[in-house]
Amino acid sequence: MRGGSDPQMVAVRAMLEARKPKPGQPEPTIAERRKGMEAFATMAQMPDGTQWAAMEIEGVPCERVVPAEAIRGRVMLYLHGGAYVVGSPVSHRPLVARLGVAARTASVVPDYRLGPEHPFPAAVEDAVKVYRGLLASGHAADTIVIAGDSAGGGLTLATALALKAEGLPQPAGLFVISPWADLTQSSDTYQSLAERDPMITKQGLDSSAAQYLAGADPRNPMASPIFGDLTGLAPILIQVGSEETLLGDSMILAYRAAQVRVAVTLEVWPDMIHVWHAMGGMVDAAREAISQAGRWIDGQFPKP
Amino acid sequence: MRGGSDPQMVAVRAMLEARKPKPGQPEPTIAERRKGMEAFATMAQMPDGTQWAAMEIEGVPCERVVPAEAIRGRVMLYLHGGAYVVGSPVSHRPLVARLGVAARTASVVPDYRLGPEHPFPAAVEDAVKVYRGLLASGHAADTIVIAGDSAGGGLTLATALALKAEGLPQPAGLFVISPWADLTQSSDTYQSLAERDPMITKQGLDSSAAQYLAGADPRNPMASPIFGDLTGLAPILIQVGSEETLLGDSMILAYRAAQVRVAVTLEVWPDMIHVWHAMGGMVDAAREAISQAGRWIDGQFPKP
Repeated sequence: MRGGSDPQMVAVRAMLEARKPKPGQPEPTIAERRKGMEAFATMAQMPDGTQWAAMEIEGVPCERVVPAEAIRGRVMLYLHGGAYVVGSPVSHRPLVARLGVAARTASVVPDYRLGPEHPFPAAVEDAVKVYRGLLASGHAADTIVIAGDSAGGGLTLATALALKAEGLPQPAGLFVISPWADLTQSSDTYQSLAERDPMITKQGLDSSAAQYLAGADPRNPMASPIFGDLTGLAPILIQVGSEETLLGDSMILAYRAAQVRVAVTLEVWPDMIHVWHAMGGMVDAAREAISQAGRWIDGQFPKP
Repeated sequence: MRGGSDPQMVAVRAMLEARKPKPGQPEPTIAERRKGMEAFATMAQMPDGTQWAAMEIEGVPCERVVPAEAIRGRVMLYLHGGAYVVGSPVSHRPLVARLGVAARTASVVPDYRLGPEHPFPAAVEDAVKVYRGLLASGHAADTIVIAGDSAGGGLTLATALALKAEGLPQPAGLFVISPWADLTQSSDTYQSLAERDPMITKQGLDSSAAQYLAGADPRNPMASPIFGDLTGLAPILIQVGSEETLLGDSMILAYRAAQVRVAVTLEVWPDMIHVWHAMGGMVDAAREAISQAGRWIDGQFPKP
């Protein structure tokens, strides 16, 4: 089977297919993609009792998302995906909310600056600013977990490298979903899994990388953390689907982390596609992955 | 740090160093190695309340290990390590007992035939026989987890491939510790981690592989499962240390499984050496790894 045998994923694939521009139809603009991503998220149900509000940390606009059963004194710094050019706290609110419930933690989601208007390293700078702000407001580093999906997963690792470079303490853990960790798109799964991935193509990421990098070296570790020295990074949990052209990024990331003695867990979920966690309302495996990641995040924090 | 910074592992490394033959001293014979491995295990404390007894399944001698709190109707088929030439239910009794406590399950540990007296595929045949025997005695396949360390980890996967080839159902899960899954020793970590691994060398495994294979093709998937088609295998959990020349076998195994949609989780434990789980009495990370693996195994079985 081209896309695996999970019946819920077959339905999701049909839906994705239907949303693709028809032949002759123009590709959506970045503005349209940004709006569409937020519209998709607002259709999803939020967990009962979760509240959210706008805030600002060190001048970076953020959204704070607090589940009913959050344990005080811990926080997840969540970096949304969207290839560094789209996505927002709004587009990722349901995902962050579900993960926050599972991890029993409040989250802070920076509305970090995006390309092409604000190229690399603006996103990394904003993420580091928010982390510094959390430390300044009294959060010990071991009460912070950084997490993110796709570009936000790469940004999570880039941020951890930036913290190390600036002499700041590592957080309690790093959780990355389907991370885009190599902006040169060098992995062989761009070819070997191209037929099976309904969302992510090398061509698409080449284009987004160019818009984000605006001429900067794609091998800069703050853009492509797999080229960095990961020594000393906090423990890493990676969740990735078997149907992803980005599978190779997760494999090489796990290998690079392992070789420098970073605690790393890699989970490959069969039949799943890029950031299937966002399908939490439709796909059992999304809820299971979120629940499993939530337990891991919960376990990285000091015992309550 | 050559061996990482875990103080308990520093002590373990010193102990291993002291046990090495001095220059001029002869290498131990296989008979001496077998005896030594069992002697080491008998020094370890068994968990309170765990009982064990000899038994036979389909003509294969086995040991049954039952913790006090075992849940009825489930069983772990445990395949011990020892490079296919040493090791026994006795040498691995403490490890199996601790894992059984963590997974709340009785275990069956085949005293499978070893090389060089009984070359490949005798070990695989014995493991399959015992699995068939468990099915015949009324265990549904989903109430069996197969597990093993080192060569026993490779044998676990070879057995899963053999079950598939014979049209038998897969077990509920496959748990492998530091698996030796490629008897050609092709991975680059034999070189890159040679300085950091105090136990396993390419030379040593080349020699054991020759004794086990007795001329058979090392690329036969029943000897080196990474060369097999892993499609359809049960979910796999891999635990491996960052200081292992065998790290590469785990990486390639995870990659091969992921590409054919097998659910696979790879955990790399920093500072840990080959099958550190056997140091459960001395090393906290051994207890933590066993506890974590036990929870995974427990979760693969049908809900009690």
